[in-house]
Amino acid sequence: PADIARVLANCLRHSEPVYIEMPRDMVAVPCLEVVSEPAFKVDPDALDACVDEILERLQQAKSPVLMAGVEVRRYGLEDKVATLSRRLGLPVVTSFMGRGLLADQDAPLVGTYMGVAGFPEVTQLVENSDGLFLLGEIICDTNFAVSETKIDMRKTIQALSGQVNIGYHTYANLPLAAVVNRMLERVPGPDKMFTVTPQHFPTGLPADDQSITPTDIATAVNDLMARHGKMPMASDMGDCLFTAMEISHTALVAPGYYATMGFGVPAGLGLQAATGERPLILVGDGAFQMTGWELGNCKRYGWDPIVLLFNNASWEMLRTFQPESHFNDLGHWGFAEMAAGLGGDGVRVGTRAELKRALDQAMATRGKFQLIEVTIPQGVLSSTLARFVAGVKRLNAAK
Amino acid sequence: PADIARVLANCLRHSEPVYIEMPRDMVAVPCLEVVSEPAFKVDPDALDACVDEILERLQQAKSPVLMAGVEVRRYGLEDKVATLSRRLGLPVVTSFMGRGLLADQDAPLVGTYMGVAGFPEVTQLVENSDGLFLLGEIICDTNFAVSETKIDMRKTIQALSGQVNIGYHTYANLPLAAVVNRMLERVPGPDKMFTVTPQHFPTGLPADDQSITPTDIATAVNDLMARHGKMPMASDMGDCLFTAMEISHTALVAPGYYATMGFGVPAGLGLQAATGERPLILVGDGAFQMTGWELGNCKRYGWDPIVLLFNNASWEMLRTFQPESHFNDLGHWGFAEMAAGLGGDGVRVGTRAELKRALDQAMATRGKFQLIEVTIPQGVLSSTLARFVAGVKRLNAAK
Amino acid sequence: PADIARVLANCLRHSEPVYIEMPRDMVAVPCLEVVSEPAFKVDPDALDACVDEILERLQQAKSPVLMAGVEVRRYGLEDKVATLSRRLGLPVVTSFMGRGLLADQDAPLVGTYMGVAGFPEVTQLVENSDGLFLLGEIICDTNFAVSETKIDMRKTIQALSGQVNIGYHTYANLPLAAVVNRMLERVPGPDKMFTVTPQHFPTGLPADDQSITPTDIATAVNDLMARHGKMPMASDMGDCLFTAMEISHTALVAPGYYATMGFGVPAGLGLQAATGERPLILVGDGAFQMTGWELGNCKRYGWDPIVLLFNNASWEMLRTFQPESHFNDLGHWGFAEMAAGLGGDGVRVGTRAELKRALDQAMATRGKFQLIEVTIPQGVLSSTLARFVAGVKRLNAAK
Amino acid sequence: PADIARVLANCLRHSEPVYIEMPRDMVAVPCLEVVSEPAFKVDPDALDACVDEILERLQQAKSPVLMAGVEVRRYGLEDKVATLSRRLGLPVVTSFMGRGLLADQDAPLVGTYMGVAGFPEVTQLVENSDGLFLLGEIICDTNFAVSETKIDMRKTIQALSGQVNIGYHTYANLPLAAVVNRMLERVPGPDKMFTVTPQHFPTGLPADDQSITPTDIATAVNDLMARHGKMPMASDMGDCLFTAMEISHTALVAPGYYATMGFGVPAGLGLQAATGERPLILVGDGAFQMTGWELGNCKRYGWDPIVLLFNNASWEMLRTFQPESHFNDLGHWGFAEMAAGLGGDGVRVGTRAELKRALDQAMATRGKFQLIEVTIPQGVLSSTLARFVAGVKRLNAAK
Ligand SMILES: Cc1ncc(C[n+]2csc(CCOP(=O)(O)OP(=O)(O)O)c2C)c(N)n1
Ligand SMILES: Cc1ncc(C[n+]2csc(CCOP(=O)(O)OP(=O)(O)O)c2C)c(N)n1
Ligand SMILES: Cc1ncc(C[n+]2csc(CCOP(=O)(O)OP(=O)(O)O)c2C)c(N)n1
Ligand SMILES: Cc1ncc(C[n+]2csc(CCOP(=O)(O)OP(=O)(O)O)c2C)c(N)n1
Repeated sequence: PADIARVLANCLRHSEPVYIEMPRDMVAVPCLEVVSEPAFKVDPDALDACVDEILERLQQAKSPVLMAGVEVRRYGLEDKVATLSRRLGLPVVTSFMGRGLLADQDAPLVGTYMGVAGFPEVTQLVENSDGLFLLGEIICDTNFAVSETKIDMRKTIQALSGQVNIGYHTYANLPLAAVVNRMLERVPGPDKMFTVTPQHFPTGLPADDQSITPTDIATAVNDLMARHGKMPMASDMGDCLFTAMEISHTALVAPGYYATMGFGVPAGLGLQAATGERPLILVGDGAFQMTGWELGNCKRYGWDPIVLLFNNASWEMLRTFQPESHFNDLGHWGFAEMAAGLGGDGVRVGTRAELKRALDQAMATRGKFQLIEVTIPQGVLSSTLARFVAGVKRLNAAK
Repeated sequence: PADIARVLANCLRHSEPVYIEMPRDMVAVPCLEVVSEPAFKVDPDALDACVDEILERLQQAKSPVLMAGVEVRRYGLEDKVATLSRRLGLPVVTSFMGRGLLADQDAPLVGTYMGVAGFPEVTQLVENSDGLFLLGEIICDTNFAVSETKIDMRKTIQALSGQVNIGYHTYANLPLAAVVNRMLERVPGPDKMFTVTPQHFPTGLPADDQSITPTDIATAVNDLMARHGKMPMASDMGDCLFTAMEISHTALVAPGYYATMGFGVPAGLGLQAATGERPLILVGDGAFQMTGWELGNCKRYGWDPIVLLFNNASWEMLRTFQPESHFNDLGHWGFAEMAAGLGGDGVRVGTRAELKRALDQAMATRGKFQLIEVTIPQGVLSSTLARFVAGVKRLNAAK
Repeated sequence: PADIARVLANCLRHSEPVYIEMPRDMVAVPCLEVVSEPAFKVDPDALDACVDEILERLQQAKSPVLMAGVEVRRYGLEDKVATLSRRLGLPVVTSFMGRGLLADQDAPLVGTYMGVAGFPEVTQLVENSDGLFLLGEIICDTNFAVSETKIDMRKTIQALSGQVNIGYHTYANLPLAAVVNRMLERVPGPDKMFTVTPQHFPTGLPADDQSITPTDIATAVNDLMARHGKMPMASDMGDCLFTAMEISHTALVAPGYYATMGFGVPAGLGLQAATGERPLILVGDGAFQMTGWELGNCKRYGWDPIVLLFNNASWEMLRTFQPESHFNDLGHWGFAEMAAGLGGDGVRVGTRAELKRALDQAMATRGKFQLIEVTIPQGVLSSTLARFVAGVKRLNAAK
Repeated sequence: PADIARVLANCLRHSEPVYIEMPRDMVAVPCLEVVSEPAFKVDPDALDACVDEILERLQQAKSPVLMAGVEVRRYGLEDKVATLSRRLGLPVVTSFMGRGLLADQDAPLVGTYMGVAGFPEVTQLVENSDGLFLLGEIICDTNFAVSETKIDMRKTIQALSGQVNIGYHTYANLPLAAVVNRMLERVPGPDKMFTVTPQHFPTGLPADDQSITPTDIATAVNDLMARHGKMPMASDMGDCLFTAMEISHTALVAPGYYATMGFGVPAGLGLQAATGERPLILVGDGAFQMTGWELGNCKRYGWDPIVLLFNNASWEMLRTFQPESHFNDLGHWGFAEMAAGLGGDGVRVGTRAELKRALDQAMATRGKFQLIEVTIPQGVLSSTLARFVAGVKRLNAAK
């Protein structure tokens, strides 16, 4: 029982999944009451000292920026962080892995920082800031490896993993929620008046006979959401994830950290199971080959996600870096035809007009999953992935 | 390099897979020559003492039996073991996990021991033997848990894992190959004259309109092999594996030890990749949902297995023991329809006549995988699984 | 070789002992060159940020105090720390475990902090300081458990174990030497003018017939050093160590951290072996029973320490806390008589006059160890130990 | 509690010391009842099979020999083993580490096997036996490294560590006591008639003016025991241990396995504490320097061992192998003079007459320890050690 209490306490404290493994012969054994561990106690003096220093630094900065990361969501702090940024007059960006955060809050959201792969305005805003405040942001290559100019982490303020790093020193044992709450108490409002230029997303897809690019898919989705309202999204790894960055801010789950393929479809099913909302799933053909078949379970549970399958018959993202490797050629599988066998509707589209029609049709059909297999010519990338590839090559060449 | 040599030496010595993990930044690093470790040396005096005792015990036994297990295959000893059994006049059985061994050798093969699930003659032969010689046999529940009368392991001769146990004592450090080789030297021949009654397998499936049972599938396959020659088989877990026991002896790979579902289709592809022979794959719908989609890779490599999918819309084997659990209901997926999308041919059959026709058709078609989705009513089991279920219930009731 | 380099680098970096275990069959094996690891690099920006903050805090404090600990000695920083304290006008104390530090430097040394066991002036100076700067001080019970008023560690500045803690935050990876050096560069001099009241030590032992107390021994030693100059000391655990606190500042080795008995005599021999100086050894009869016989080795090496054996036929220090335990009675062993057998001179003294005479005699005799067995009545403690016992009882009662 | 039960069960099962470490804050915590683990169950069929084979082998042997080792004592089997050897007509030897076993039993004891260091008759008896039965004998260098002709361990019968090895095979899980008991049941008696030639020990020391050799000490002790009866002995490492082999059979504790110096005096005190009998302690000056001072505790407990200190001012045993190392010179310490200070009587003897007198005097004096410091010229060894040194040199030369 003490072990169970400890594990559950860690689950709450780190807001991360935990495992409790139950040997088969223990399942029916009675267990003493599990007494929950006392909550972790924050030292109020340390908290004050730390918040003092953060506020002072932000005030002295000429161009402070707040970058929100996954912990903000994990600890349920989105509303509070939005309020804080308004009161402090801080423009907000998310990291790549934080994409989708604050999408539903009234925050001065500028866009998503992606270094060389991102929009230049956002990249400059972040890289030129003299007061970068990283809130719940995981410091890792996925978020920061492709910076144009290396960010000096020693000059930032980082609240993460239950501690705060400022410049060269560290305040230990200060949970993110405690820091945010104390800052809100210290900065009572009202909101500061200031404007930010939000990122621009493509809209207005022509319903013509041209073949489809990933950016066309983003455009079509933007149009759809404009008409029908936001939908939560799940994306797999591959160009579909870069394409997701061109879709207007909405809740997004994606395999950011380990970048594992095969995440998208099951994650989308989980989204609908957990929230009841109909999700949009973005997935490449490579990834679909791994776990796409899980769509067969939709019928049993009544799920009806809309699946946009980016079929370029290729591990295209790998090919751009390693064009000589023929294992990247996947051949053409007939995904649309298989939808019926799996209990859903399937359609293959090759032109922008077909895409638009298929999306409208899918939107209108409820109760079955809707698989739209989008044929994309090999070598055609989303603008974002193209920018990313060019940027990485530029950075490598400079070495 | 010494580590690599050690790992490779263990690979050879235990004839088991090994892992060599290569950190990403070491791939291009030059490596000193890998000097192979000296071969393991067998003590010839110990080997002689041990073989003496084995031969004496077998000679004294009134009804000695040789049971061959996986190590016989792993160390490539099938021919030698067949010869040995002929010279010693020993009837041969395999264990459940050894099924398929000696199928192509001229050995006095009686059948497969499966305790309560097996044919009574084989079960009695083994359980009444006063000189059971286990050769490379894994002593585990899968092989022995369902014996009618508990076999007294202390009374058997076991050559396994590089040692030999006789009665109450152990000869350490005697590899199986060394034991078999030394026995052959000591028993020079000629073969003894004796006959065994081999197990009988069902043949002659009527091409009528009755619905199909698993045993019908075994019958159809026996007919097919009688006409076209033996094919190697891969089976998944579930009733299909019990059905495989009713098919005449042929090479068989199956997930015996951990009984993992999802093994059948990939194993069948591996079989064709490794041997070039066209395999027969037996798989349930539950298992196919896990990994059946790997058939999509056949096109790329030109593989054309014949897949017999036992579709009872159910985790039937679990249901027989736990009928109250509704998670065993899988619903009906349209597997046959999906074959085309995956690049093969698919057909759904519901009667014995259709089954026969579909098998003939599949046999005649090369170059694409052939998926035969056999509709089986829920609750209909193979004779072997039925015997197994009844036996286990009898054993449990006796407790 | 890489392992050896790593271990040696750690030896230097932490200035702590390391073990290199050599298997017996490797002694004669040739070894590749040991290439020393690159020195640890300090981040100069972090160092500056940290020194800035330390200096600012010390300047703002009304009564700053510097407490020097063992790392100051271990890293060879005594002279530098003395200079630093003069330039900053900081009164200096040592901890209990730091006793003996700065004894030979021109530092504004006030005394040794021992909480309830120490002189009230020193205790108040430390406990009332609003700017306590702990330099290389081990934060442990031995040093701080017996404070009158608990010191709020969060309010101190601690440079220790390669990092600096100020208030609630931490600067990682800043070695003590780097911090001290950078501070000296930032505070160029000249020395500040200020005076401290150094601790007072008893002198002038009457050569009378009274029986001897531990404090008498301290007095006699102070007299001796006043006449003949300072001698380095080694002390064992027990009242002898508390008595050592009443002897004027001189180099002292003692088993502070684990408080292990049996350290004194061997440590004294090591002192003479390492420095060539004649040491004074303080040891109780309990401890002498453990390792005192090592004096027998003096003859072989020509060592001639003066050994003051506090013989109260008792584990007296334990008895004060646990008077009911009779294992504390050790009985009277004839230590003085045994000196000759061990190759030295021995004398037993019972009065202050005898003690004085014996010490003079010992001082005058070179080339053999000089054992002075001082008979002390049971129950008679040094003033310092008496203060310690009373203080601990007071603190415990308050709980 | 389950941990405690497990540890205690292991203590009993292996008859070896166990540790139960008690954290300081757990001492007063109440503990659930410790339920003792069920006794280890022996398989009676395996036991019979094993005993059958042992008896058959012994019967077939022309010159069987029983060698008794420490486990015979540890499991309290001395009487039973003596009976067994009489019934089977087996001459008995002990190993070096088993010296002292069966000293008080009526066993056909020939002597102690020491290979090149032993008496030739014993060495030949053991090395030529075709049925060597090792009972509770530790197979290690201390016992077997100095054989004249290497003993083929594969041809012996070994009952040790809870298992029995015969020739090339092993019976697992058969405790020594079970084997001995079952053998006694199977060989009911009566005793066989046969005679053995016991080893001869020197007696009759001339009380003359010659200087003393170690063998003289053995002679003097044999004379003493002949007159006054057997005394138990404790010996340290060094020539004193080899000398002990020349003393007639009596209980002996010595540091055989790790050959640790410093064992003799404390072990002797333990002997008297545990058994109440007055012990004889044999110890070299090197070893006495380590732990001899523990004699100071005799007064407190009323112990009065007789200590024979072999003072050759040398680590003589090391010197014989490494004469060039001067660290073997220890110088002369005055041990006899120190006895009084430690609370006992001390005398230094240099001639055989003095030795005899001192021993008689010591024997006659009770209530205080009696230290006899025997001056032995450097380079003078006991006959046994001399034989050992010559034998080892012969063996090494042959390599
Ligand atoms: C489990 C896993 N295996 C391999 C990779 C490496 N990888 C990254 S992207 C990619 C190709 C993805 O192909 P697809 O899903 O078709 O998307 P596309 O790149 O064509 O947009 C691969 C193999 C990975 N991220 N995860
Ligand atoms: C990976 C894995 N999960 C679960 C099981 C437990 N299990 C054994 S048989 C079985 C049902 C198999 O269903 P199906 O493949 O349809 O064959 P059937 O039992 O219907 O013949 C299950 C779930 C298993 N053996 N392996
Ligand atoms: C190795 C070890 N064992 C036990 C102790 C506990 N201990 C602390 S002081 C002391 C008594 C020391 O006796 P003695 O050397 O005679 O000095 P005294 O206390 O009489 O001044 C003991 C047993 C210890 N510190 N170290
Ligand atoms: C703890 C320990 N250290 C070192 C040794 C190695 N050693 C074996 S015999 C010996 C010399 C023993 O000297 P002494 O006790 O005087 O006996 P002598 O050899 O002179 O008979 C030494 C150092 C040992 N056995 N144990």
